[in-house]
Amino acid sequence: MHPEAHNYFYVKPEDIRRDYFILKDEEFHHAVHVLRLEVGDMVTAVDGMGTEFHGEIRDPETSGRTREVRCAIVKTLRKPNEPILDVTLMQSLLKGDRFEYLVEKAVETGVNKIIPVHTERSVVPAETQKIHRYRRIAMAAMKQSCRSVLPEITEVMRFQDALKSLPRSSVKILLQKQGSLPISRCIDDLRAEKIKKTVIVAVGPEGDFTREEINLALEESFLRVSLGPRRLRSETAGLAAVAALLAFDV
Amino acid sequence: MHPEAHNYFYVKPEDIRRDYFILKDEEFHHAVHVLRLEVGDMVTAVDGMGTEFHGEIRDPETSGRTREVRCAIVKTLRKPNEPILDVTLMQSLLKGDRFEYLVEKAVETGVNKIIPVHTERSVVPAETQKIHRYRRIAMAAMKQSCRSVLPEITEVMRFQDALKSLPRSSVKILLQKQGSLPISRCIDDLRAEKIKKTVIVAVGPEGDFTREEINLALEESFLRVSLGPRRLRSETAGLAAVAALLAFDV
Repeated sequence: MHPEAHNYFYVKPEDIRRDYFILKDEEFHHAVHVLRLEVGDMVTAVDGMGTEFHGEIRDPETSGRTREVRCAIVKTLRKPNEPILDVTLMQSLLKGDRFEYLVEKAVETGVNKIIPVHTERSVVPAETQKIHRYRRIAMAAMKQSCRSVLPEITEVMRFQDALKSLPRSSVKILLQKQGSLPISRCIDDLRAEKIKKTVIVAVGPEGDFTREEINLALEESFLRVSLGPRRLRSETAGLAAVAALLAFDV
Repeated sequence: MHPEAHNYFYVKPEDIRRDYFILKDEEFHHAVHVLRLEVGDMVTAVDGMGTEFHGEIRDPETSGRTREVRCAIVKTLRKPNEPILDVTLMQSLLKGDRFEYLVEKAVETGVNKIIPVHTERSVVPAETQKIHRYRRIAMAAMKQSCRSVLPEITEVMRFQDALKSLPRSSVKILLQKQGSLPISRCIDDLRAEKIKKTVIVAVGPEGDFTREEINLALEESFLRVSLGPRRLRSETAGLAAVAALLAFDV
């Protein structure tokens, strides 16, 4: 067995009291029926907002309901496995189940927010996007990777609108095969300044951003960054950039 | 359309002459029937061994066969989009179609060799591995990413045997959640020495390598390298490490 094969549970913020938290519904089912945890067993729960609780299972009856179990809080940790770098991925819509895979990998790797963007040359209609499903995958990936922050998956946004929604003081990266700044230089610059940084990574569709979209991004202070000479699929580019950036968060 | 939407074709080494090459079978079909290329059109073909040819389509009849087309060589390039870093990924077997996805992403990103390894705690039987299918995916990913080197996908090897097959003078990385060397330090060291480097990245199964396997790897001079505090799925770890290493090849 994996040395850390213990499971992470999700607890809603409203189910946390001063000295206990309550596992409900699916989380209850998983703890009691699947893992067959019993009174006295230890569990780890996260609230998706950066807090991790270590709790001890108490009598499932005490709450007076059958679909929940109380856990006494033994220890509270604040963002134990979260990166310092705050990365947002603006990813163009993808065909088939590729966006699902992207969400799983990006959340594990450590991004804090994913904005699915519809660009001029996106061939996938925004209406087909299963945002609810992406959010479930993000939840599973948060627990899988021992994170305590549940990354936000926004609704699909038009690229122009997404650009306007970004925080001003962030490092903004537009991935471009012909980008003038190598990502290695970009990472070196981020490391040189030892302040907490918010980074936005924008990735276009297979057909790339239009000239107009690139200009709009440049007006919002995006840097045209290159991952090298190879032609990467849209989601490969997003994942590779995020992985490279977060490798330096260690 | 993508500015570089032109297609890359594969040409077998034995189909290359001094001043022309021959596209056959599927490549012929794709060029002539799918893309409807005609005499005088330009194509790019790679031999999978590092050479890229720019060719002009000549009369399909000249060869006297119907399933092939000759292309006059106009220009020859040597490894135009290949990384300097020579990365081999030793990846533990994965469930479902996860290995297929891994092959696609790793080849695009720039690895030169993938060794599917069966470890003590691998839960996927070696016999179920569709190596032929992985090789087809590698071929497609090579063309997709404008590479000229076709990465080798070996047969499944036992971890112990794979360890013995590695070149002596390579940097050997064993990814470990509790690894003592952060990958960022490892990359800094690689960058500091400006010589061509061969890097091996070994990734264990969900249940991790056994203590014995780790010791065997340490005897072969592997370094225990960490990607940070998050618990990554096996293939996420492999992809993240490869992406981080190759981001510094630019």
